[in-house]
Amino acid sequence: MDTPTNDAETRQERFERGLDMLTRISGEGGQRVVDALADVSPELAHQIIAWGFGEIYRRPGLAPRDRQLVTLGMLTALGGCEPQLDVHVNAALNVGLTAEEIVEALLHAAGYCGFPKALNATFVAKKVFGERGLLPVTTD
Amino acid sequence: MDTPTNDAETRQERFERGLDMLTRISGEGGQRVVDALADVSPELAHQIIAWGFGEIYRRPGLAPRDRQLVTLGMLTALGGCEPQLDVHVNAALNVGLTAEEIVEALLHAAGYCGFPKALNATFVAKKVFGERGLLPVTTD
Amino acid sequence: MDTPTNDAETRQERFERGLDMLTRISGEGGQRVVDALADVSPELAHQIIAWGFGEIYRRPGLAPRDRQLVTLGMLTALGGCEPQLDVHVNAALNVGLTAEEIVEALLHAAGYCGFPKALNATFVAKKVFGERGLLPVTTD
Amino acid sequence: MDTPTNDAETRQERFERGLDMLTRISGEGGQRVVDALADVSPELAHQIIAWGFGEIYRRPGLAPRDRQLVTLGMLTALGGCEPQLDVHVNAALNVGLTAEEIVEALLHAAGYCGFPKALNATFVAKKVFGERGLLPVTTD
Amino acid sequence: MDTPTNDAETRQERFERGLDMLTRISGEGGQRVVDALADVSPELAHQIIAWGFGEIYRRPGLAPRDRQLVTLGMLTALGGCEPQLDVHVNAALNVGLTAEEIVEALLHAAGYCGFPKALNATFVAKKVFGERGLLPVTTD
Amino acid sequence: MDTPTNDAETRQERFERGLDMLTRISGEGGQRVVDALADVSPELAHQIIAWGFGEIYRRPGLAPRDRQLVTLGMLTALGGCEPQLDVHVNAALNVGLTAEEIVEALLHAAGYCGFPKALNATFVAKKVFGERGLLPVTTD
Repeated sequence: MDTPTNDAETRQERFERGLDMLTRISGEGGQRVVDALADVSPELAHQIIAWGFGEIYRRPGLAPRDRQLVTLGMLTALGGCEPQLDVHVNAALNVGLTAEEIVEALLHAAGYCGFPKALNATFVAKKVFGERGLLPVTTD
Repeated sequence: MDTPTNDAETRQERFERGLDMLTRISGEGGQRVVDALADVSPELAHQIIAWGFGEIYRRPGLAPRDRQLVTLGMLTALGGCEPQLDVHVNAALNVGLTAEEIVEALLHAAGYCGFPKALNATFVAKKVFGERGLLPVTTD
Repeated sequence: MDTPTNDAETRQERFERGLDMLTRISGEGGQRVVDALADVSPELAHQIIAWGFGEIYRRPGLAPRDRQLVTLGMLTALGGCEPQLDVHVNAALNVGLTAEEIVEALLHAAGYCGFPKALNATFVAKKVFGERGLLPVTTD
Repeated sequence: MDTPTNDAETRQERFERGLDMLTRISGEGGQRVVDALADVSPELAHQIIAWGFGEIYRRPGLAPRDRQLVTLGMLTALGGCEPQLDVHVNAALNVGLTAEEIVEALLHAAGYCGFPKALNATFVAKKVFGERGLLPVTTD
Repeated sequence: MDTPTNDAETRQERFERGLDMLTRISGEGGQRVVDALADVSPELAHQIIAWGFGEIYRRPGLAPRDRQLVTLGMLTALGGCEPQLDVHVNAALNVGLTAEEIVEALLHAAGYCGFPKALNATFVAKKVFGERGLLPVTTD
Repeated sequence: MDTPTNDAETRQERFERGLDMLTRISGEGGQRVVDALADVSPELAHQIIAWGFGEIYRRPGLAPRDRQLVTLGMLTALGGCEPQLDVHVNAALNVGLTAEEIVEALLHAAGYCGFPKALNATFVAKKVFGERGLLPVTTD
């Protein structure tokens, strides 16, 4: 885990530290989002990396695995964020959550967000698991 | 952690197992919600306990602490769920999350849900922390 | 039920037909909302009455009772609309839904919107039922 | 309408009663959702059937037609639930709502959820009506 | 800018004034939505035009450019409204907002709605800009 | 308008530039939010100021008045953000929007978010206008 961000850093240094964090957590999925922004909103890409990953994600107060649990909950609840769920189901697997735990978290979500949003999120997880050879998932 | 729910249970037994789980996780806050439903929708109270806590929460596939991380994310993202956030910030503390981790989770939420919802959730957390003598919270 | 709105009507006539419909459905609650808008956005009040009630509500294709069922579902799902739910729980009772049916509709909502939003809506219903002497509600 | 669920039932019996209800209401659409969950979250499929349909839908306090009106309202308001709206527009037709009433309910939704969500829901309804040979719909 | 709508107009006149406004603002995109509604909910199409554009949009109190800024903010925040964002990014360009301002507005949205919804909206804008030969967008 | 943020700044410098921007735009309301966070999440306060105001708001690509129009749209659409709407209705007045334009923007919102959210936002505006001696608002 990195040290917190209370030092003097240039905009470029914040970006580089964020990019390092993004690559460790989200792998290619995160990079693809950033690339797709290059010709329309490079500043949005910069801020997702430099601020989202370079300032927030690298803070030591919450483990990467825990951050993904919170994130899966938020993206499921927001709805309409299937592309971001794809990135973050991958990220969740990358930082140590198992497919079984992810499936259980999305079942848990049904009671708070209702079945439709839990279903939408679960089908994104199924797609990611399929791409990573993790199907079938066995719970209980 | 309880065994999963694939056995034969009566409606009353499911309720009792759920009530036990609710009491362990949510303490008085959960019970107050159930009591408040008694004269308007006792069946909603029954289902929150018997299904939400008796069937979902007691499944062994996700630790109680992890369930609260997902739940804090969902309630923050949904918006307008301050009464439920109050119950679940308490629950999060009861199952082992620290005030520092909860605050960090809600800071993390800003990037996914925006500052307004992160603020609303953080002020609920502040109220709960105050009631439990946990202020000030020191992060970093 | 009124005839549809395909005739030539002045803005004032649409308003008057809407006000008649509003009074029949929402009673004092609707009027209070309109009054509260008088010094800040009289046009919003006009459009709620002239368009919402004068054009949409008075169409014969869906019974008033059915409109309130759809409306209760929407307001519960949207979240943060407790003042409007108060008006529409009253409206639902005014057009023939029973307290038992309203409670059942909000229990049904738990599966689609999750427990937190179902709870928020149920507590609004409890307040309205209390004001109208309809507590306790007995279901099943 | 079934008797309420206050008896002793095994997990399997609840599932079977729910499956019977699901088949009557949602037909093939509901079954397809359940099948798609088999290799990723069979427990989510189980709970949708055993709890959603076996416990909630079969309660006698609200007619199936009324449940679909509430559900159409909720799914329209939630947004991003087009796959579930597809299932429930079919369900609404299966339990006795006409295409005209569904269209009117979604027009009614415009005043509460705004035109964008009303449009999204109406285009799902159009797709379902087309598949069932119900176009054009004639209102007024 | 048209005069306000406090005169006597027939339903058909309101529709015609709205259609004129719709065509000026949304061009073909708005018309395509209306056409697609013809066989399922012509009344929804009528009301979007006659009320949305004929009554609200033509009011002189807020400039068309300002209305699109508010609208871009709402559609981004609502989520799941990508088809409507497509129409309104086009409309925003039609009434004088530049691609750079639109991109900046959606970057600004990240702080209020979070990155996922800002991303979804930005990718819709990218698609529209591509169709109109406005890529790459250069900010700062 | 400040120059963009592509230089090397310390964390403290970003905060100070943000605080200057916050004070100009939001006045006391913004400061009160920051103060209330001091004992629970000072980092959230820091990031709202240093990032939200110090990096995003100070970018020259969108005028402060335009940012508030987008923001009013977002906060109205999100729902449950009445405390933030209070701050931003004040901010909107501070950067040159008139009460009449704000009221018109919230009337415009009815077509995209529905009447309930437009009402909630309008009543927040009424409260702020009352505090600043701007009632009654006269439109048309």
